[in-house]
Amino acid sequence: MDSLDDLIQGTGAAAYCLYASSENADIRHMSRFVTHDPVTIIKKIDCSPVMIVPQMEADRAARESPAHILTRQQAGYLEIFEHEKDPWKIQAAMISRLSNGPYLVPPNYPIALARALEQYNKVIVDADSRLSAHRAKKTSEEISWITRAQRAAEAAMDVAVSLIKNAEIRSGVLWHDETPLTSDLVRYEMNKIMLAHDCTAQDTIVACGQETAMPHCTGHGELRAHEPIVIDVFPCDNKTGYHADMTRTVSRGEPSGKVIELYLTVKDALLMSEAMVQEGKTGAECYIAVRDFFAELGYRSDTEGFVHSLGHGVGLEIHENPSLSGIGGELAIGNVITLEPGLYYREIGGVRIENLGVVTKTGFSKITNYPLEMIV
Amino acid sequence: MDSLDDLIQGTGAAAYCLYASSENADIRHMSRFVTHDPVTIIKKIDCSPVMIVPQMEADRAARESPAHILTRQQAGYLEIFEHEKDPWKIQAAMISRLSNGPYLVPPNYPIALARALEQYNKVIVDADSRLSAHRAKKTSEEISWITRAQRAAEAAMDVAVSLIKNAEIRSGVLWHDETPLTSDLVRYEMNKIMLAHDCTAQDTIVACGQETAMPHCTGHGELRAHEPIVIDVFPCDNKTGYHADMTRTVSRGEPSGKVIELYLTVKDALLMSEAMVQEGKTGAECYIAVRDFFAELGYRSDTEGFVHSLGHGVGLEIHENPSLSGIGGELAIGNVITLEPGLYYREIGGVRIENLGVVTKTGFSKITNYPLEMIV
Repeated sequence: MDSLDDLIQGTGAAAYCLYASSENADIRHMSRFVTHDPVTIIKKIDCSPVMIVPQMEADRAARESPAHILTRQQAGYLEIFEHEKDPWKIQAAMISRLSNGPYLVPPNYPIALARALEQYNKVIVDADSRLSAHRAKKTSEEISWITRAQRAAEAAMDVAVSLIKNAEIRSGVLWHDETPLTSDLVRYEMNKIMLAHDCTAQDTIVACGQETAMPHCTGHGELRAHEPIVIDVFPCDNKTGYHADMTRTVSRGEPSGKVIELYLTVKDALLMSEAMVQEGKTGAECYIAVRDFFAELGYRSDTEGFVHSLGHGVGLEIHENPSLSGIGGELAIGNVITLEPGLYYREIGGVRIENLGVVTKTGFSKITNYPLEMIV
Repeated sequence: MDSLDDLIQGTGAAAYCLYASSENADIRHMSRFVTHDPVTIIKKIDCSPVMIVPQMEADRAARESPAHILTRQQAGYLEIFEHEKDPWKIQAAMISRLSNGPYLVPPNYPIALARALEQYNKVIVDADSRLSAHRAKKTSEEISWITRAQRAAEAAMDVAVSLIKNAEIRSGVLWHDETPLTSDLVRYEMNKIMLAHDCTAQDTIVACGQETAMPHCTGHGELRAHEPIVIDVFPCDNKTGYHADMTRTVSRGEPSGKVIELYLTVKDALLMSEAMVQEGKTGAECYIAVRDFFAELGYRSDTEGFVHSLGHGVGLEIHENPSLSGIGGELAIGNVITLEPGLYYREIGGVRIENLGVVTKTGFSKITNYPLEMIV
C-alpha cells in the first residue's frame, strides 16, 4: 500500500490539505474526530497531520484525535485578522504559515480556499482521488467496525422480514395488530433496532410494488401481498462512523411469474459476481460481465433493466471508492464492497439483492450473513 | 428578499452551478431531493433549476423534485464520454451544453470541477455565500418543519430530565433500575424518543462534571449527583431534513456555588441576548454585548470562559448562516437562530443554555418551549 507520504511526494507537493467538517470522510479518516464545523488538516511529508480547530474544540480534539492540534489562535488567526477579514484568505494564511506548499488537495476541496491558497503557491488537485483510494483499503479494525454495522443491518432485516411474514393478508393488503402494515412502520421498527445496536439509519428503503421500479424510492403506504418488497438498509455505526449496506427483495405470498424470473436472474448475477471478484480484477470487468449476462437473457441496461452499477465501496461514506461501474478501476485487497445487481421495469417492478464483503487475493470474503430467499 | 435571479445577475454570471449530494444544504434546498450521490444543478436566470441525475434516479427525481430533471444520457454523457474519460471534465462538458457561463458557484464548489469549467468560461465564486444567506431567511413552512423537530428535541429533553430526576443517588452516583445511569443510556433513550417523532439524532451530548468543560464532548460513563450535566440535542427531521437545536444544563442535587454562579450568569446572558435580537442588529453586536457582559463580571473569553460564539442559524444545516460571532453580519426577518451563551472552566466545569427562535422586525420569537431550571 502506498503510504500517504509517497502519494504527496509523487505529485511534487509539500503537504496534503483538507478543509471540511467530519461529515467529509477524508477529514474523519485522518483525524478520527467528529465535528459539525469545518476544520483544516495539513499533512506534511514525514510529519503527523496538524488539525486547526476553534478554541472551543481544543481540549476535546487533543483527547480524541491522534492529529497534532493547533487552535486558530495558535495558528496565527488574531494577527492575520488585523489586516485580513475574508475568512477564506484567513484560512489560507494560517495554512501558509505551516507549509510553503505546493499544496495537494482533494478534488472536492472548496474553490474559495483553493484560490486563496494559490496566492502562496501552486495548488495541485489529487485528481485521481488517491487519498480516497488509500482510504478504500481497509484495516482489519475498520473491517470489524463495518461488520458490527452489518450485524445491525441484519437484525433490522430480521425485524422487517418477521413483520411481513407474520402479517395477516386482508384483500391483498398486509395487516399487523389491526392496522395495515406500512412502509413507515416497518422502517421505524428497523431504525429502532439499529439504534439499539448504536447505529443510525436514515432513508431506509421499504418499497412495495410499482415503487420498487425506482431503485432509491424509500417507500410509502400499505404493503401488499404477492408483490416485490425491496428492503435496503445502510446503518452508520455511531461510535466509529463506518457504514454497512444490504438489500433483500422479499414477497409475502407468490408474486407474478415475471417478478420471480427477475429474482432468479438477479440472484444468479449476484452469485456470479461473488465468484468473479478478487484482487486485480477491475470494477468495470465485473460490471460488464453482469451487464452482458443480463443482456444474453434479454434484460436491457438503458432506461430500464440494469440501470445502476454493480456495486461500490463502503466505509466512512456509504458510497465510496472503488466503483464497480463501467469506469471502475482495479480492486485491491482490503476493499470493502457491495455487490448489488438489480433489474427494474416500470410495468413489472424491481428486484435488487445486495451483499457486502472484502476483496481478497483470491476472492470475495462475504461479510453479509443472511439468507437469499424471496418468498417469506 | 433578493431573488436568486437578482443574485446571479448581480455578479455578472449566467447561471448558478451546484455539485454535491443532498447532504449539501444548497443542493437539498434547491432540489428538495434526497440523494447520497452527487448531482449537478444549474439555475439559469429566468429558468427553473435543472438537475442532472443518473438514470437510476430519473423517475424518482421527476416525482420528488420541482427541478427540471435530465438524465446524464439526456445531458450528453455518452457522446462526451467518447472523447473524454475524466469524470470532472465530463461534468463540466454537460454543464457547458446547458449554459455558456460565466458560472457562479458557492465557495465550497469542488476545485476539480471549477477548474474543468474554467475551460469554458469564467467561474465566479459567490464569496459572500449569498445563496446561503438566501437560505437563511426561512419561509413559514420551513419554520413549521424546524418547530416540529424542536418538539422532538423537547420530548427528548423531558426523557433525559426525568431519568436524572428519578434516579436514586448511591455514593454520589445516579442509579436507575439497579444499574448506574450513564451518558450512553440517557443518550439512547433520548434518541429513541426522537426516532418516534421521525427525527434522527446523532452525537447527542449528555456530559457530566469535568466533561462539561469541553463544549462538544458527547459524554461517557456514570452520571453523578451535585455536578453540572450538559444536555445538547439537535435532531434532524427525517421527512424534510430540517434541524432543531437546544441545550439545558441540569444538576441532580445542589452543585458547587461556582457552578451555580456560572448558571445564573449564563441564564442572564441568554435573557439579555433574547431581548437584543431583532432585524438589522448584527450577529457581532449581539455576540460582543454578551462577551462584554461576561467580562464585566470577570468571566474571560479566551482559552476558558465564553469560548464560542453566541449562536448560529439552523435549517438544513445544524450550523448555518447567520453567525452570531465576532464577524456576524446583519440579522434578517425569518432567520432561525440559536442563542446559546456558555461558560467553561477546566477546574469548575461548563454551563450552556440554548434557545431557538425566529428573528422578527422587533425581536426574537422563541420556538423553544422548555423551562430554564438547573436543579431537578
